Amino acid sequence: MALAVGMRVLTRALLRPWARGLRVAPGRTGPAAGGGDGMRCFGSPRVLVEPDPAAGVAVVKMRNPPVNSLSLEFLTELLISLEKLENDKTFHGIILTSDCPGIFSAGLDLTEMCGRKPEHYVEYWKAVQETWLRFYLSNLVVIAAINGVSPAGGCLLSLTCDYRVLANNPKYTIGLNETLLGIVAPFWFKDTMVNTIGHRATERALQLGLLFPPAEALRVGVVDQVVPEDQVQSTARSVMAQWLAIPDHARQLTKTLMRKPTADRLLTERDADIQTFVRFICRDSVQKSLHAYLEKLKQKKG
Amino acid sequence: MALAVGMRVLTRALLRPWARGLRVAPGRTGPAAGGGDGMRCFGSPRVLVEPDPAAGVAVVKMRNPPVNSLSLEFLTELLISLEKLENDKTFHGIILTSDCPGIFSAGLDLTEMCGRKPEHYVEYWKAVQETWLRFYLSNLVVIAAINGVSPAGGCLLSLTCDYRVLANNPKYTIGLNETLLGIVAPFWFKDTMVNTIGHRATERALQLGLLFPPAEALRVGVVDQVVPEDQVQSTARSVMAQWLAIPDHARQLTKTLMRKPTADRLLTERDADIQTFVRFICRDSVQKSLHAYLEKLKQKKG
Amino acid sequence: MALAVGMRVLTRALLRPWARGLRVAPGRTGPAAGGGDGMRCFGSPRVLVEPDPAAGVAVVKMRNPPVNSLSLEFLTELLISLEKLENDKTFHGIILTSDCPGIFSAGLDLTEMCGRKPEHYVEYWKAVQETWLRFYLSNLVVIAAINGVSPAGGCLLSLTCDYRVLANNPKYTIGLNETLLGIVAPFWFKDTMVNTIGHRATERALQLGLLFPPAEALRVGVVDQVVPEDQVQSTARSVMAQWLAIPDHARQLTKTLMRKPTADRLLTERDADIQTFVRFICRDSVQKSLHAYLEKLKQKKG
Repeated sequence: MALAVGMRVLTRALLRPWARGLRVAPGRTGPAAGGGDGMRCFGSPRVLVEPDPAAGVAVVKMRNPPVNSLSLEFLTELLISLEKLENDKTFHGIILTSDCPGIFSAGLDLTEMCGRKPEHYVEYWKAVQETWLRFYLSNLVVIAAINGVSPAGGCLLSLTCDYRVLANNPKYTIGLNETLLGIVAPFWFKDTMVNTIGHRATERALQLGLLFPPAEALRVGVVDQVVPEDQVQSTARSVMAQWLAIPDHARQLTKTLMRKPTADRLLTERDADIQTFVRFICRDSVQKSLHAYLEKLKQKKG
Repeated sequence: MALAVGMRVLTRALLRPWARGLRVAPGRTGPAAGGGDGMRCFGSPRVLVEPDPAAGVAVVKMRNPPVNSLSLEFLTELLISLEKLENDKTFHGIILTSDCPGIFSAGLDLTEMCGRKPEHYVEYWKAVQETWLRFYLSNLVVIAAINGVSPAGGCLLSLTCDYRVLANNPKYTIGLNETLLGIVAPFWFKDTMVNTIGHRATERALQLGLLFPPAEALRVGVVDQVVPEDQVQSTARSVMAQWLAIPDHARQLTKTLMRKPTADRLLTERDADIQTFVRFICRDSVQKSLHAYLEKLKQKKG
Repeated sequence: MALAVGMRVLTRALLRPWARGLRVAPGRTGPAAGGGDGMRCFGSPRVLVEPDPAAGVAVVKMRNPPVNSLSLEFLTELLISLEKLENDKTFHGIILTSDCPGIFSAGLDLTEMCGRKPEHYVEYWKAVQETWLRFYLSNLVVIAAINGVSPAGGCLLSLTCDYRVLANNPKYTIGLNETLLGIVAPFWFKDTMVNTIGHRATERALQLGLLFPPAEALRVGVVDQVVPEDQVQSTARSVMAQWLAIPDHARQLTKTLMRKPTADRLLTERDADIQTFVRFICRDSVQKSLHAYLEKLKQKKG
């Protein structure tokens, strides 16, 4: 308990430096906030929150079109939504899902890593670290309703959740495919994957940059359940009910017991991890390769 | 080898302070000790030992009715039986099973944790730690013949064994279900579970307090084998023969190689773990909740 | 990257003391080196290298009849072949297989551990450590085409590879069966096995000295694929193509990310591990038991 409390204070303190000054829209009421019933809504431009206070659950929909790239701004909004829900005693669980058809999240935003100043890379990487830490250790039950493709950072985001339901669509692959882009997952991406599917499966998946289609994702353990596409949300709801039946306090402490040692590795090596990232991303070869990749994407769209 | 020897000395030294002065019945010969053949028997009131010297095996039957609660006295008798069998060169393996119909062990004895003085909690928790350490690192082959339900501490006890055979009765569930009672498993319960079924399965099972019925227990790996109820003892015997075919010394060193790092975590944090337990159990809210639970149990029986 | 480079320098430095003065045949061209096309060949008397420069792949065939015992001389030749292939930019992957019918490798050479001086045991154990380190961390893709029985050190060698294809012949068992000989696997054998098949399966397999036939080896995860005997080499080739499609640099760094922590345990305890081995092997009882075993083998052949 003392441990859990200490940890939260720590992540908040860490959050502040870069989150400070960000525009937030507290108490904004949007059209999707529950049918005009005056329900308080934590939504922000890119993060749609649909609260169900009776159930103690909020559905958090990622809406950063076209592919829910995890930009600095989007990550910030996600974290602020999470923090608000955590601080609101009404809520015990959230369902994390996507509002962008066919895409859960395409992962880290490459434009945040290309052609910017080192200070920007530092700020961005802090946000990525913080997102992982906050979701991985959230005192809320977090269930991923994965309704689209989920490569790299999108997969990582789902791995921070307590349970993963994937829509049974062969296009909806999921995995840490960083090597395919010529880059390397940081150690805490790897640790999260090892905790989920074990050492050997991770070794193979990460080296080959495997993106698992639903049946294989289930077999290897990247996701916990695969259901027909139109049942992803309802399944996530049922699973949530099972998790919320457990006394909150004991469940939270048990989650901390399981995950704190892994989180501690990043907490103690946070600065070194930032430096490793910035050094890597500032290399000419990496910048060139990212630039070429982004150009190719642009032409595809054009 | 040096390692193994050092370890045993250590656990003995640790055992002494609280075991000192306990009434033991060394050399007692009971009716169940082998049909009046004058066989020396290590039994005690709550622990029935059926030796088969020809096979080098002893069956240790837990007999603390009605549910084999792991009381301080019962744990002490269990440990003394174990130590005697370990010190007797005749024996190379034991089969741990229950003499209480339908129950392997209901786990820790809540009456030891409710309405007592802090000193009692300290003494009790030392015994629980010691039981885990001694069984987990025993130089004997220990096979669990699980012939009944096995929640919480009952599951932990079986997890210390080298092999688990579970009777195929849908009522005989097994798991670390502490969260259901609003409490949290200590880190070494968790470590033992992770060593057995892996990180992800443990994360889910411990948070949800899952009690696995036989088929699922086998699938997830909590037990090694599920057999018809009337074949549990004979299967345990056959498995034992396979284990005893391995040269004792090499097998013992290999067991130490596998388990010592996990045991070391508790050995180095033993006092802190006691303090954590006592602090937790002394809380008003925990005492109230345990008291209410015990009252409910009493009324059920009454 | 810095990490990877540092590591290689280290293993080279470590290699030198005992490799110094070994007779090597650099640039030797043998009859098996590609049909007289003048292809440069790295082969040595016991290690046949068949290069396919167009594919960037070399097939490394172990040829230390009758059973590919890992003698000091054979290990040295293996390591020199590996180092040369690693230093030749032409090659990105190797397929490790056997030239001895029905045997991949029988493991460590017991004659190197019996009736020699302590200095010899030191030298031999350094070579065994080095072989594990160099293969486990090789910057090449290493695929094992396991075309025969593979106990103990033979199994370990295959576990250092990135992928294992086993011929579907019930005689071709694989496993760390050290306890059957009354000896104990060193901790890094155990670590490699745990990384491959998990803690519980390793605990059981190592204590019982299990040798898995193909179907079981696949089920437990000791190997990645089981194919008909005449398809082992072609399957290894196809798998290699999949691995070589990944950008080299990112794949190598990811391999380091996965394996360096395990290798570091040996690197930091290298001397202690040698001392443990030498102390163990110098015991009268061990020497007697090895001697008796070798005599029995001799009589079998005679």
